[in-house]
Amino acid sequence: MSTRERIVVIGAGAFGTALAAVISLEGRHPVTLIGRDPSLMSDLRDDRVHDAALPGVPLPDALEFSAEPDAIGEASLVLFAMPSQAQADAARHYGPYLADGAVVVTCAKGIDKSSGRLLTDLLEAELPHHPVAVLSGPGFAADIARGLPTAMAIAAGDEALAERLANALSSRTFRLYASTDRIGVQLGGALKNVLAIACGIIEGAGLGESARAALISRGLAEMSRLVEAMGGNADTVRGLSGLGDLVLTGTSHQSRNLRFGIALGRGEGTQAGGPLVEGAFAASVAARLGEKFSVELPVTNAVAEIIDGKLDIMTAMEQLMTRPITTE
Amino acid sequence: MSTRERIVVIGAGAFGTALAAVISLEGRHPVTLIGRDPSLMSDLRDDRVHDAALPGVPLPDALEFSAEPDAIGEASLVLFAMPSQAQADAARHYGPYLADGAVVVTCAKGIDKSSGRLLTDLLEAELPHHPVAVLSGPGFAADIARGLPTAMAIAAGDEALAERLANALSSRTFRLYASTDRIGVQLGGALKNVLAIACGIIEGAGLGESARAALISRGLAEMSRLVEAMGGNADTVRGLSGLGDLVLTGTSHQSRNLRFGIALGRGEGTQAGGPLVEGAFAASVAARLGEKFSVELPVTNAVAEIIDGKLDIMTAMEQLMTRPITTE
Repeated sequence: MSTRERIVVIGAGAFGTALAAVISLEGRHPVTLIGRDPSLMSDLRDDRVHDAALPGVPLPDALEFSAEPDAIGEASLVLFAMPSQAQADAARHYGPYLADGAVVVTCAKGIDKSSGRLLTDLLEAELPHHPVAVLSGPGFAADIARGLPTAMAIAAGDEALAERLANALSSRTFRLYASTDRIGVQLGGALKNVLAIACGIIEGAGLGESARAALISRGLAEMSRLVEAMGGNADTVRGLSGLGDLVLTGTSHQSRNLRFGIALGRGEGTQAGGPLVEGAFAASVAARLGEKFSVELPVTNAVAEIIDGKLDIMTAMEQLMTRPITTE
Repeated sequence: MSTRERIVVIGAGAFGTALAAVISLEGRHPVTLIGRDPSLMSDLRDDRVHDAALPGVPLPDALEFSAEPDAIGEASLVLFAMPSQAQADAARHYGPYLADGAVVVTCAKGIDKSSGRLLTDLLEAELPHHPVAVLSGPGFAADIARGLPTAMAIAAGDEALAERLANALSSRTFRLYASTDRIGVQLGGALKNVLAIACGIIEGAGLGESARAALISRGLAEMSRLVEAMGGNADTVRGLSGLGDLVLTGTSHQSRNLRFGIALGRGEGTQAGGPLVEGAFAASVAARLGEKFSVELPVTNAVAEIIDGKLDIMTAMEQLMTRPITTE
């Protein structure tokens, strides 16, 4: 059996609230959810429901809420569940309150937009005295919070820590698989958004479900090559955080990246989807990484060029379909 | 450039007709479609449309049709596009008409139900003087025939033959990837039907898209283990014929295996979907193979037991979610 932990989740959006709820539900560990907005946190404490983020989902009685950083207290595990672009700032804000030896788990998808660095690298630089792990994989907040079966990957620098985290955070409905490949888990989570855009483009252009399936399959192969070139394990990408999450994002209309791609595929341009989605940034970052590590990324490059308006969709498909025949 | 081939497709159902049409379209090789029903073949010749199988899709002018086995003539490539249970019989019926050195390509999904043998093994036994290859992957007949972009895998015993076939049969919209892993390509095609049933069960039971994504990801991992234990390459399963086809079958309501699973998930029993689908047979065959090769197949075993009525869905999910935590 796993040891008892004290757990804090920072970030009271849909995902952070869902994580805090599911981890708290079985009562094995005390859990506190910390958010920046005092009135929201006070409402959550009183109402036991997060109407804006997870309407209709009751939150466990045992779950505690706070807007104060010092509620971190003696927490042994601290989950960073804010968006990726807010993680560095959160590390600076909450870092001084972390107890000695507290483990930080980043729960955002992958790459810092401005620096192009992995979030674990970024957090390790900000918090050099704390081990940093990453949680990623196919889990919609609403599914997790409602207690539907969900499985994700959790990666830490060493195996003992990864297994401790997987055991501590898993429950009957929320199952975590331990990994030591933080690079693969993070790149899988980031790059699948690029392929989700590609799936959307194919759907929007009316190119058929067979083409979408082929694209997911070939896109995953190029993701694996990039991860391997960057020191990760290609198998990770074929697991929950790459493939699993891609299947979810690339086939569910709940996904913003997919909807962005559909608008592109219909010829509505990049403005139709509103602000650029995460996958749009990841596409150009990944295309640069492919160049740097000499990895061929035909699908990723096509997506990046379509978003930049440098390539039209029919030309892209033509190019993808008429490349020299290769082995799988 | 590839050499000119003479190509015959046997089997005038939706898939055979679609293959014959797309291969014939660019006029690089003469193509004949052979079926057993003389009046159907004569109608196809006159009408240039297969109303029953591919309504509204015009067939190329250059495509020839015949109901006579001797129309095989000097064909260098002969595609067997009839259902898997009819392939052995077709080998006996058409075998005597094959020219010396003609290559046979089986285009059915995977395993012979009665013997549990791979179709390439079965055809090699029936046709010992002919090389046998296999074509599999994510391609709906309607998508292929309408010229939507499609990619599949083609595997032969040696690389030169695999590449010759991939080059000969590929066109602008239909792209084949060469492989030498006939075991992996066939098992991928057969086992993905088992996981498609599992996806259906999850959908029918209302367990959410996150659970479906996790199941596809974990199911693929166990498929890879079985293929490896049987002498195939685990990577093949993560390519077009395993993963690619699984994404198509597991997420598209055009799939009979998925609909069968949905009925099971709703508690309508195995009769609701009509006759047992291919994946139902593949589940019990795969479960036996897992035992024989000492490979753990929790998802496959659960599907086989649910179909047999030995396990209810909630117990199965509970078992899958509470297995000891493992690494990915």
